[in-house]
Amino acid sequence: MSFSSESIQSRFAALHQNKFFEFFVISVIVISALMVGVKTYDIHPGFITVMNWLDIGVTVLFSIEIITRMVAAGSLKAFFSKGWNVFDFIIVTGSLVPLGDGQMVLLGRLLRIFRVLRLISMIPELQILLTAFVKSIPRMGYVSLLMFIIFYIYAAFGSIFFSNINESLWGNISVSLLTLFRVATFEDWTDVMYETMEVYPISWIYYLTFIFIVAFVFLNMMIGIVLDVMQKEHERYDMEHGEGEAGEVHWLRVHNELMEQRLVKMEEVLRRIEKQTASGLESNK
Amino acid sequence: MSFSSESIQSRFAALHQNKFFEFFVISVIVISALMVGVKTYDIHPGFITVMNWLDIGVTVLFSIEIITRMVAAGSLKAFFSKGWNVFDFIIVTGSLVPLGDGQMVLLGRLLRIFRVLRLISMIPELQILLTAFVKSIPRMGYVSLLMFIIFYIYAAFGSIFFSNINESLWGNISVSLLTLFRVATFEDWTDVMYETMEVYPISWIYYLTFIFIVAFVFLNMMIGIVLDVMQKEHERYDMEHGEGEAGEVHWLRVHNELMEQRLVKMEEVLRRIEKQTASGLESNK
Amino acid sequence: MSFSSESIQSRFAALHQNKFFEFFVISVIVISALMVGVKTYDIHPGFITVMNWLDIGVTVLFSIEIITRMVAAGSLKAFFSKGWNVFDFIIVTGSLVPLGDGQMVLLGRLLRIFRVLRLISMIPELQILLTAFVKSIPRMGYVSLLMFIIFYIYAAFGSIFFSNINESLWGNISVSLLTLFRVATFEDWTDVMYETMEVYPISWIYYLTFIFIVAFVFLNMMIGIVLDVMQKEHERYDMEHGEGEAGEVHWLRVHNELMEQRLVKMEEVLRRIEKQTASGLESNK
Amino acid sequence: MSFSSESIQSRFAALHQNKFFEFFVISVIVISALMVGVKTYDIHPGFITVMNWLDIGVTVLFSIEIITRMVAAGSLKAFFSKGWNVFDFIIVTGSLVPLGDGQMVLLGRLLRIFRVLRLISMIPELQILLTAFVKSIPRMGYVSLLMFIIFYIYAAFGSIFFSNINESLWGNISVSLLTLFRVATFEDWTDVMYETMEVYPISWIYYLTFIFIVAFVFLNMMIGIVLDVMQKEHERYDMEHGEGEAGEVHWLRVHNELMEQRLVKMEEVLRRIEKQTASGLESNK
Repeated sequence: MSFSSESIQSRFAALHQNKFFEFFVISVIVISALMVGVKTYDIHPGFITVMNWLDIGVTVLFSIEIITRMVAAGSLKAFFSKGWNVFDFIIVTGSLVPLGDGQMVLLGRLLRIFRVLRLISMIPELQILLTAFVKSIPRMGYVSLLMFIIFYIYAAFGSIFFSNINESLWGNISVSLLTLFRVATFEDWTDVMYETMEVYPISWIYYLTFIFIVAFVFLNMMIGIVLDVMQKEHERYDMEHGEGEAGEVHWLRVHNELMEQRLVKMEEVLRRIEKQTASGLESNK
Repeated sequence: MSFSSESIQSRFAALHQNKFFEFFVISVIVISALMVGVKTYDIHPGFITVMNWLDIGVTVLFSIEIITRMVAAGSLKAFFSKGWNVFDFIIVTGSLVPLGDGQMVLLGRLLRIFRVLRLISMIPELQILLTAFVKSIPRMGYVSLLMFIIFYIYAAFGSIFFSNINESLWGNISVSLLTLFRVATFEDWTDVMYETMEVYPISWIYYLTFIFIVAFVFLNMMIGIVLDVMQKEHERYDMEHGEGEAGEVHWLRVHNELMEQRLVKMEEVLRRIEKQTASGLESNK
Repeated sequence: MSFSSESIQSRFAALHQNKFFEFFVISVIVISALMVGVKTYDIHPGFITVMNWLDIGVTVLFSIEIITRMVAAGSLKAFFSKGWNVFDFIIVTGSLVPLGDGQMVLLGRLLRIFRVLRLISMIPELQILLTAFVKSIPRMGYVSLLMFIIFYIYAAFGSIFFSNINESLWGNISVSLLTLFRVATFEDWTDVMYETMEVYPISWIYYLTFIFIVAFVFLNMMIGIVLDVMQKEHERYDMEHGEGEAGEVHWLRVHNELMEQRLVKMEEVLRRIEKQTASGLESNK
Repeated sequence: MSFSSESIQSRFAALHQNKFFEFFVISVIVISALMVGVKTYDIHPGFITVMNWLDIGVTVLFSIEIITRMVAAGSLKAFFSKGWNVFDFIIVTGSLVPLGDGQMVLLGRLLRIFRVLRLISMIPELQILLTAFVKSIPRMGYVSLLMFIIFYIYAAFGSIFFSNINESLWGNISVSLLTLFRVATFEDWTDVMYETMEVYPISWIYYLTFIFIVAFVFLNMMIGIVLDVMQKEHERYDMEHGEGEAGEVHWLRVHNELMEQRLVKMEEVLRRIEKQTASGLESNK
């Protein structure tokens, strides 16, 4: 039996394409997620010991799984070239922090929560959803910036005029920003408004214009992303199906023009032939 | 008069396509629905007796109707091959539980509520809406899973950090999940936030990132389903109207290429003829 | 000076196409709307007399305006054939109820409110919006029916199980329906839930499934109407711009096929000519 | 060294296309925005002096920047022909109001807030978003007008019937409008409803119809703007990429018809040639 590194690599690669192995890894992820949840209940100390052993088991399994994947990839460079592998590696190494005691316990517990995210890298449909999310960040970024500018101006106004009315809501600009976010979610916003309207009866304009503008910007963001996604989806579809309809129509237009020129030339030739044969017939007579 | 099973079957089938019969069945469904509603009021005991007799009447009518449909279908296999028949059969047999007393009363009443659902199988427009709902479940499933992962991570964080602040909101992971759902619907979410901000002033980040991410995932879900429905609607339309525009354009492109090749050959032939007639003329001279 | 009915009709028709007259009518509508608003304030009794005289003035002006329009239309049949004229006629005659005293005062005031609606029939852009609304009613109707069925089933469940917990929220089916509408708008829905969860800890399933289903149906309704509007807008655009792109592409496909057959025939003729001239040349030698 | 106005103009124009200068201006804007925010905190009096000096610095920098831009533009007319330059000019001159004392302090502080808006004119992506907003105002205007008419009618009803129930919510038409806006945002709307239902138990119809109609109008507004944006985006794309697909298809249709006529003529010529050569051959025999 030869145990060349080649054969190990291909064996591990085959293992990772195995449906049962995949199902087993997903089960371990779900178990580790449930363990995080169970620990938030008041549980029997004896059970905690069981949990800690289980946790060690999961950590070991995860480490083995990621090492086999590294081996299957052939080289570390090949392994880390895939974003999802980096994603998994960070999560797995993060949870190697021991569940000791003191400050480290908390850190260990927090890092173990992120193990649930490995579900995303295991299920292709979730990968697609997350990729779509990441791709829409630039577009969302500018809309968020515009929204922040609007919030900032309103917050500055609010903290200048209303800080004497309610210090805890309008005391300074950061508190005002939080209050405005609350108003934007319609959460008890009338209480905030009625309070300031007692001093400035005209202040309803402040709230109504704010709600209108923010609702519009949010709407625009939604529409913008919808259109973007549609446009990209369409382009991708076009690329997959040859050059797409628009490209084909353009090809048709260009080639129809060439064909017309060719036909014009052919007609000229035909007229010449007709003349020749006619004169041939006459000279023949 | 021959009462062959054949003639009964065709008579019953004709009955079910009768508009008045259909209207009668819908009326019985609406009456049975109203009876469920009336029973929730405090009503005179004498009236209850009337209601019980009415209920028996509705149950008998429903049973007869479904039996005639079975006969009209020809065989039980043919009857149960349609999803909507199975749907109706379960609802009707479910309400055969007698309105006796004790525990069974409650069960009987609950099962009678579902009779309203027979309206959906009677009205084609509602069938279409429900079918669209059922078809969108797979797509919604993955988005819900992603949403649940986000909720779970935030709930784990919440129950680790905030459980000492308010046991009834963050006591364990399931209570935290419910609290986060409340935050996601903007229901008094600032009360929840202000409470934790007294201990961790920085905890507004927790709520704001959560609201942003959940709103985005929900948005994505909406867009995804909109696009899916549009794509499918479009494909269906294309199939119904021959091959669709894109298919026709592609056909045009392929055939235009063939036509061009044909024209090239024809031009060559024309040139040859021109030469021949020219030389024929010359030799003729 | 001849005052034939013909000339009066054309004069009145010209008057109604006059921009200043249109502006004047809109101003009267706005004034009558403001009067309705002003009366809701505590105003000086002397001012009320002024208001009543103004009201008589507006009523008279409206009556004159609608009579001139009737004359301009030529016949009552022609006048009432337009839906918007019927709309205006009902509003104007409705406000002929005198602002006397007792019960009639209230009725007169209520009918005067609807005068604001005349703005819609005066401004074409608002007419378009209202027409779009009326056209979407059938589609909205079925979705509303499905939504009502869902509400009804949940309300029946709610009034069976929760009526002992809070009579004012779940006492009977109509109260339960109102409570569920409140839950659907997220208005203090957690208060309702926490109350029932004390008796049935599992009842959060009732609220969460309800919110999910209602949100989905609402989403579907929105998408359905969006798609419908788009489809119709597209068809209308196609009809206005000749036969539309899809029609032209189909025309192209059919005609390209004919052209190909013609070319095949032409090639055959060419081949025959080539043979003939070749044999002609040979026989010439 | 020649300091002709020409060379200064081109130097300033070059400066404004410099990436570092742009970055510097954006930094100054952000600093000035932060200063507005910092002033809302209780800060040490000594720090205020620093802030005032910083403010003078920012004001001077802004003035210099706008003057160099005027010079770079060549003429005042060229400078003010661009909307964004007018926008910047108003903001910069507005903040020249000195931070003296008394009433002027407040005005100066308010005008300084708007400096943040200069970020929009500096970042092209934000310019696009704002332009889209401005373009959608006409369409939004009519929908808002329709919405206002609905609000007004409901407010008139409300202040006639409910003013005796709660003066602070339904006292007059303007208070009623504010209450209805609150109901439209679902903010504690059930409290408002339960109050009036004690006097008029049927008044839930008022609230439910209002919520349904307003939700529909808002939906229609959203859809309308989405469709408008899509249509315009599509037209713009078509214009940028030649005549667009629809235009090309139309071109193809027209030219295919011409080509067919040409082919018919060519076929006739061919038939004639065939006859001639055939008769030529025969006469040759």
